[in-house]
Amino acid sequence: MSDINGERLLADLRTLAAIGGLPDGGVDRLAWSEHDLAGRRWFAERMGEAGIEARVDAALNVFGHLPGTGGPWVLTGSHLDSVPNGGRLDGAYGAVAALEVLRTLAESGDPFAERLEIVGFADEEGVRFESGLIGSLALAGELDIERLRDGLDWQGVPIRQVLAGAGRDLDRMLEAQQHRDSIKAFLELHIEQGPRMEADGIDLAVVTGIVGVHRQRIEIQGTQNHAGTTPFRLRHDAGRAAARAASELRDLIQGVDAEAVANIGSMGFHPGGVNVIPGRAQFTLEVRHPDERVIGEAVGAFATRLERICAEEGCRVVVELLSSVPPAPMNETVVVALEQVCTELGRRPAKLSSGAGHDAAVLSRHVPTGMLFVPSVGGLSHSPRETTSDEHLVLGAQALLRGVRAVAARIK
Amino acid sequence: MSDINGERLLADLRTLAAIGGLPDGGVDRLAWSEHDLAGRRWFAERMGEAGIEARVDAALNVFGHLPGTGGPWVLTGSHLDSVPNGGRLDGAYGAVAALEVLRTLAESGDPFAERLEIVGFADEEGVRFESGLIGSLALAGELDIERLRDGLDWQGVPIRQVLAGAGRDLDRMLEAQQHRDSIKAFLELHIEQGPRMEADGIDLAVVTGIVGVHRQRIEIQGTQNHAGTTPFRLRHDAGRAAARAASELRDLIQGVDAEAVANIGSMGFHPGGVNVIPGRAQFTLEVRHPDERVIGEAVGAFATRLERICAEEGCRVVVELLSSVPPAPMNETVVVALEQVCTELGRRPAKLSSGAGHDAAVLSRHVPTGMLFVPSVGGLSHSPRETTSDEHLVLGAQALLRGVRAVAARIK
Repeated sequence: MSDINGERLLADLRTLAAIGGLPDGGVDRLAWSEHDLAGRRWFAERMGEAGIEARVDAALNVFGHLPGTGGPWVLTGSHLDSVPNGGRLDGAYGAVAALEVLRTLAESGDPFAERLEIVGFADEEGVRFESGLIGSLALAGELDIERLRDGLDWQGVPIRQVLAGAGRDLDRMLEAQQHRDSIKAFLELHIEQGPRMEADGIDLAVVTGIVGVHRQRIEIQGTQNHAGTTPFRLRHDAGRAAARAASELRDLIQGVDAEAVANIGSMGFHPGGVNVIPGRAQFTLEVRHPDERVIGEAVGAFATRLERICAEEGCRVVVELLSSVPPAPMNETVVVALEQVCTELGRRPAKLSSGAGHDAAVLSRHVPTGMLFVPSVGGLSHSPRETTSDEHLVLGAQALLRGVRAVAARIK
Repeated sequence: MSDINGERLLADLRTLAAIGGLPDGGVDRLAWSEHDLAGRRWFAERMGEAGIEARVDAALNVFGHLPGTGGPWVLTGSHLDSVPNGGRLDGAYGAVAALEVLRTLAESGDPFAERLEIVGFADEEGVRFESGLIGSLALAGELDIERLRDGLDWQGVPIRQVLAGAGRDLDRMLEAQQHRDSIKAFLELHIEQGPRMEADGIDLAVVTGIVGVHRQRIEIQGTQNHAGTTPFRLRHDAGRAAARAASELRDLIQGVDAEAVANIGSMGFHPGGVNVIPGRAQFTLEVRHPDERVIGEAVGAFATRLERICAEEGCRVVVELLSSVPPAPMNETVVVALEQVCTELGRRPAKLSSGAGHDAAVLSRHVPTGMLFVPSVGGLSHSPRETTSDEHLVLGAQALLRGVRAVAARIK
């Protein structure tokens, strides 16, 4: 069996990282920005050089397959956009490795090449627009087009206008879903974006499922007052109530399930004066777990504790649901096939759940889907310091080549 | 002895409250804003109508005394500026009551009127510029003019420019101190801004001293990371460290001294994404007590605990001193004189320390100084809901009239 060209893969990753590249090694290819569009053009041109036919759909997803083939295909790839000041591998790695896999198959005249399609998805990150995953949702026919119609990006520009600037018509975005029935399975290679594989000495991991993500915005309402003249016993300090709840979050969540994680990523006291007792405190809560029932229990445990704290502090609490994305289990047949691939490559087959969301979560609701992870050095991601060793990058692409073949053999 | 005109006092307070007045009853007369300047013009005009000579100094403090008198005077008054969305009495009450007292004395041809000067101080609040008390510091000759020279207001406008807009030259601000030697004592009438008098059924209180105020800005530095993929045990969560410290503040401070108070009025996590573990957390700390030694102990106890928490969380802490205003004891002779005034008015003489800073703290370092408090309904201040009963407002002005006379008799 032919193998991928590691040097070429690494060179392509370097070239793509320079598009929207930052002096510190990070990249800035925010969805549908100039740099993002330049990255997509480069991806399509690189396909062309390898004799792969590139096609850009209504959502700016970039697809590639051999000329004259008509599917149904095993699809592999990932997203090409990045968070602001992000890393060079998050998404880009899976897309470039997909290109390398199809290129390798085409070069060696492997007939399997005709059964493979590759993709670089649009707007997975959801930084520019709140939801994210717009490219894969459009392909899956799950896009809430009505919401996008009135949508503004983070700088107040209508999404319609952003898309028009990229040469795409919002009203025609739903056409992307016409391609869905040509896909019979999906495989995504990605960096772990966490520290677990490195900590446990794992080179390749098969993803068993992608966690569900529950997000809330919480406001605590107390009584704003003068911090010098109001004795402690007479305060209704919204900031203190929020701090108490935040300080107890970890123990509460771990008490529900050892694998559950949660985060309070933003916190603000109002009005914010050094000498004013906060009358309001606002923070966000995020809870993740592969099992929706556990998420519900964790969210409930925090809410109960928060109510109790607020009662003690003489405050009120208002909870607003921001979003609730259900967990996405990977296809069992695909998981077994990928485990076997790891074994063939001489690696202990490790199974992990993914703590981050991925395009694979969307595709898993429509076709048999699986994911492969390679380790992230130091567990860092969404950071210019995000990286993975060259050895692991090449190994992951080798596993992907074997993986798409194994999945195609099992999924009819 | 003539008495003040309660109806006129209350009408003047209503008129001043309409300058920069808000629909909810609050006022917005931020230092040197248009509304603040309009309030100062009104104050000077109202003096003129009563035959009092108004004089505006280099810091925009508004003074008034009878024409042809040359001091030394007993000075009384308070500040005319407010916090944003503040109350109608904080400062304004003491200034308008001072006007009513001198007006009453002048109308009755009382010769003591010639020995009294009144003032509406500028920028006591320190909201627009960080230090506050700029009007009284300028009068006292304590103003750090070098710091103001490079100073910006909260919206980035140079202080020099703000002053120029109000018709004043920063470089000439030190001229305000030329008036200091004309003052032989200072008396300030103010609302309590706290709930203690109301809770204990006290109508008038004599202030024994003003608390010292220690302020810090604290930054906790952790590691920014992905909240979905980083297990709890591998996080260095700056937000969690800040929340733990904030939640323990009250017990720590009360453990040092039952009368000490502290506040964390602002809190922010960075970068603030719902799915990003905070890499930095910033908050302010304020500690107040009438005894400087206790302030030092309380600040030290919090610092020790914070260091310990940060060590446990794998974070670093950086503390920046914002300001440290020492406690200001009131003059004992003045305190005794004011207690006697309360007794004359048939009120139990209550003695309190002031948890809030006042212009009187600055003046107390230069001349014998005292303060009188009237109760705040519900203890609210720095709020549109700040209020005091009409009965207490009139009673306070009656006490001030007797107080300035009693102080003048004892301080030669």
